[in-house]
Amino acid sequence: MDEFRALHIPGSPLLLPNAWEFGVGAFLAAQGFRALGTTSLGVSAATGEPDGAPSTRDATVALAKRLARLDVLVSVDIADGFSADPAAVADLAAELAEAGAVGVNLEDALGPFEHQVSLIKAVKARVPDLFLNARTDTHWAGDHSVEEAEKRAKAYADAGADGIFVPGLAAPADVEKIVGLGLPLNLLFVPGKVTFTGLAELGVARVSLGSLPYRMALQAAADTATAIRDGRDLPLNPPSYADVVALL
Amino acid sequence: MDEFRALHIPGSPLLLPNAWEFGVGAFLAAQGFRALGTTSLGVSAATGEPDGAPSTRDATVALAKRLARLDVLVSVDIADGFSADPAAVADLAAELAEAGAVGVNLEDALGPFEHQVSLIKAVKARVPDLFLNARTDTHWAGDHSVEEAEKRAKAYADAGADGIFVPGLAAPADVEKIVGLGLPLNLLFVPGKVTFTGLAELGVARVSLGSLPYRMALQAAADTATAIRDGRDLPLNPPSYADVVALL
Repeated sequence: MDEFRALHIPGSPLLLPNAWEFGVGAFLAAQGFRALGTTSLGVSAATGEPDGAPSTRDATVALAKRLARLDVLVSVDIADGFSADPAAVADLAAELAEAGAVGVNLEDALGPFEHQVSLIKAVKARVPDLFLNARTDTHWAGDHSVEEAEKRAKAYADAGADGIFVPGLAAPADVEKIVGLGLPLNLLFVPGKVTFTGLAELGVARVSLGSLPYRMALQAAADTATAIRDGRDLPLNPPSYADVVALL
Repeated sequence: MDEFRALHIPGSPLLLPNAWEFGVGAFLAAQGFRALGTTSLGVSAATGEPDGAPSTRDATVALAKRLARLDVLVSVDIADGFSADPAAVADLAAELAEAGAVGVNLEDALGPFEHQVSLIKAVKARVPDLFLNARTDTHWAGDHSVEEAEKRAKAYADAGADGIFVPGLAAPADVEKIVGLGLPLNLLFVPGKVTFTGLAELGVARVSLGSLPYRMALQAAADTATAIRDGRDLPLNPPSYADVVALL
């Protein structure tokens, strides 16, 4: 994971687009992205399951195995680990590392932070070389308290996390406070709320696109179908059939 | 399949958008499409396999089962049936009908048409109520001979096919020739080559989008990531996270 860790540069962040299936991963790699994340929403929606459901564990591992065939570094969104059992979450992390992933994203869903600390410790004890990005949901599902984010980030860092992810965090003073903790800070790109350049200037080390590429893909597919149905003009300039076949 | 068959109206064609996973199928259904096709390229690319590979049989069946949960009529692209054995192809068709599909698309890849006739007869004998759309590849991979397309379409119709699909066929006189055979004719929407209205005027009964929605989805995901990376303006107006969750 040394190469992956080295891409986390405060002030010159790694832009991590999130894939949910092989074809999109291959197409993103062809655009020059050196590293890919995955999106639990995309993986879950593709199989018709709720976001992050334990039933999506196998699809998550299968995706990691497929993406590992590409010449990219892969960090896998494992939601809450699909289990409350630290040993089971460590097993999953080991399985992903074995599959070729260089990192995982583990979210706390604002559960007791002592539980999250035990998950992080279990993963780092089992696969110390896997980049563990610890996500706290204070600014995603919580009350947007930067003090709570700071407390959790510190505890996760002490437990061995390699990076901190606070999706939804955007206020400059708050971002700088978490950057100040010293661990690479990962934020979510939220259209209209932040810019990539703006996050860079605040010292962010990694910017994830989350489910945005998946949601844009859904919109493009639907726009294509409705434009043709309704006789509306739409630029249709996708990769050709042969281009896609060449990715496989 | 009575409702599905009734949607094939020469001159007022069924527009069939092609899904490759549940989320996009649910989002297309939400746009008012009453019937969905699937795309073997999308299913294959999503799992990193060559288009129509036998290894994608299970993913194809799994997709059909998921899409059948939606309030839509589903016709499944089964490529060449994933087998040269008529009994195995009939088994697959029965499995899909059991899963809730109302139709299948079976392509000849320009193999001996007697073989294709035996596959069609086997499927129709096993699941007579399944709408069998017989695809001939004369204008996809072949030499674009309308005489060959006509010969094959007649043989497939005699074998029991419910519809004929000639992807790539576009020349008006040729389209009218195949329409004249009497079976519902399905053509592929090819941007810049045909229009939905133009195909309707020629008496076409069904228009498929093939892999176009999948390829547009790939392009949208890549455009999103590169626009953010390169500081390029791009309208970002996808469904929200909550919108997607509500589809699941």
